[in-house]
Amino acid sequence: MTVPALLEAREAPPAWVTLFPMVYERESLRNVQGYLPGKQPLAEQRVVKLNTNENPYPPCAAVMEALARVPADALRRYPPPLADEFRVAAARIHDLVPDQVIAVNGGDELLRLAISTFVEPGHPIGVFEPSYSLYPVLASLQGSPVYALPLASDWSVPDDAAEALNAARVPLTFLVNPHAPSGTLLPVAEVARLAAALDGVLLVDEAYVDFVDPDRAHDATMLVRRFRNVLLLRTLSKGYSLAGLRFGYGLGDVGLITPMLTKTRDSYNVDAVAQRLATVALEHRDEAGRTWQSVRAERARMTASLGGLGFDVASSQSNFVLVTVPPASGQAQTIERALEARGVLVRYFDQPRLRDKLRITIGTPEENDALLAALRTS
Amino acid sequence: MTVPALLEAREAPPAWVTLFPMVYERESLRNVQGYLPGKQPLAEQRVVKLNTNENPYPPCAAVMEALARVPADALRRYPPPLADEFRVAAARIHDLVPDQVIAVNGGDELLRLAISTFVEPGHPIGVFEPSYSLYPVLASLQGSPVYALPLASDWSVPDDAAEALNAARVPLTFLVNPHAPSGTLLPVAEVARLAAALDGVLLVDEAYVDFVDPDRAHDATMLVRRFRNVLLLRTLSKGYSLAGLRFGYGLGDVGLITPMLTKTRDSYNVDAVAQRLATVALEHRDEAGRTWQSVRAERARMTASLGGLGFDVASSQSNFVLVTVPPASGQAQTIERALEARGVLVRYFDQPRLRDKLRITIGTPEENDALLAALRTS
Repeated sequence: MTVPALLEAREAPPAWVTLFPMVYERESLRNVQGYLPGKQPLAEQRVVKLNTNENPYPPCAAVMEALARVPADALRRYPPPLADEFRVAAARIHDLVPDQVIAVNGGDELLRLAISTFVEPGHPIGVFEPSYSLYPVLASLQGSPVYALPLASDWSVPDDAAEALNAARVPLTFLVNPHAPSGTLLPVAEVARLAAALDGVLLVDEAYVDFVDPDRAHDATMLVRRFRNVLLLRTLSKGYSLAGLRFGYGLGDVGLITPMLTKTRDSYNVDAVAQRLATVALEHRDEAGRTWQSVRAERARMTASLGGLGFDVASSQSNFVLVTVPPASGQAQTIERALEARGVLVRYFDQPRLRDKLRITIGTPEENDALLAALRTS
Repeated sequence: MTVPALLEAREAPPAWVTLFPMVYERESLRNVQGYLPGKQPLAEQRVVKLNTNENPYPPCAAVMEALARVPADALRRYPPPLADEFRVAAARIHDLVPDQVIAVNGGDELLRLAISTFVEPGHPIGVFEPSYSLYPVLASLQGSPVYALPLASDWSVPDDAAEALNAARVPLTFLVNPHAPSGTLLPVAEVARLAAALDGVLLVDEAYVDFVDPDRAHDATMLVRRFRNVLLLRTLSKGYSLAGLRFGYGLGDVGLITPMLTKTRDSYNVDAVAQRLATVALEHRDEAGRTWQSVRAERARMTASLGGLGFDVASSQSNFVLVTVPPASGQAQTIERALEARGVLVRYFDQPRLRDKLRITIGTPEENDALLAALRTS
């Protein structure tokens, strides 16, 4: 039979179509709800974008120069599979060894790798609620139930968390610190207590740690040196203004890093351009540090200004603030939509404990002023 | 207790260390062997690198110009999550609709997504042997046994393949075409027969399809339009000289593409730089096409020259050739090592049916001459 004849024959559904539903997606995936990212307006649209926690300032000049200097051969050849140059740079900065570092295609990849490395399909994954809404999505992809512990009213971790997680035999727990979406910071001592008491792995998602006030002297890398079950997630998306580059890294004991490096990671998970730019960005982190300082100053101003408008503002150590809308001001979702109509994007979460709140990224002074003006006239 | 005191207390292993082995890697992963990529020499080393099937020519000028023009804001902001601009461009070129296209972080990601989307953990995955050695690694990560079918002596698919795969209830089968590591091409009519007869999904890994002779008129995208169970994998790594960029894409029925796009894919799997450069590369594919023609010309020359040296050379439609070392010439692995000592890298596979063979990437005329010279004096 020739190809056209064969294909012609298939114009009418073959008999087995009536036997099989023609749904190839695996059964346990059918009810999984995918992750819904924040709105990404087209580049042309002029909006004040305070909904996805990007750094409002551009990446440093050295990164842009490195981009223009990427040689053709770096594109043509496979990239260094383990991103060794980056790992050496990161290890030096964090006073660790390269084998305690893994480079990933954005922090989300490390979350996925931690699950596929430390959690058997179907075993539970610990999360604190509310939290990053991607965690339960990733758990469901592994066929794993979420073991959810509600945070206290000040968003701190309850004292009996480790006991409960151990009793449920949870092999991996996600803790985002500074917390999202509130921005509150759990001190290293508290994280250490949790790690010491947990039987399983504690992944501390430090996506926003660069924005913590330096006078807090917050440095969780000491936990990597002391605990064999602590995995820190860092990303260049926020602090280094490189969300578009997709680059993050994990810091942890060699026993945690090695199986991810050698087994569960895609063979060439981080491209050559990202490896180069990320290394340069880290080596020039003092320049990024100036943007962190600007964000902190604006965070203080916005906390005061939003408070002055009647919102309750959680004490944030991140590059966003979570505000509670007072009942007199109407529904949070209504305000989010009114702001969007005025060209200002903020984030509303249709989740328990968050429906009267809005998460607002700290932008440039001009962007923040635009938000305040839009709120005053909404 | 203060942090230093707490940490000090942990200098001695706590009591539960004796209860738990401190191995956090999940049990079913412990015997998994990771994928071993081909050797990547450091950039400084001057070697003739014919071991990992890169295109020997640089990416086209338009791609390098696009790289230098990437704006800071594209790095600062999250990338378009679905890579829509690329999907529109690819759909236009392949005469499909964008919803039949998914962009991925290198072809390896599509292989992983196909497994996590179409295969329940533990269900079998079909492969033909010998084949890309990553397939069984990915299967083992899903806890899935490999259902392996030996290829015929001419590396073609046996007639009863679909029957056997259906009997084993295999939900996903990988077929690399042109075949690796032999380079032989299965005609579209044969692929169509296999797809029509298979109950499960057929992923056709077309990593090397750009190097097929145009006079073969080989175009498998017709299968996407006619079969709901065919997923084609394309990559820009080889044909477009962009292995360092990590960019591939899948073409398939909307029923196959949608769950990967909306559920199993990492939220921002492809970075902004890769999206831009890949789109430009595809739009300038005529320039890449000139490199394909050069590779084909050299492939013909090398097939003849290697044959003249006494090697049996499989008929290749790819950018590499598989040569069988005659017994009089010694062990294939010995030759590989002798070549490496002379600064020429080729690939040896320590696998059944391949231990008397070497896979040699087609390089520039100068690189190929260097290989021939090294072989003559080995």
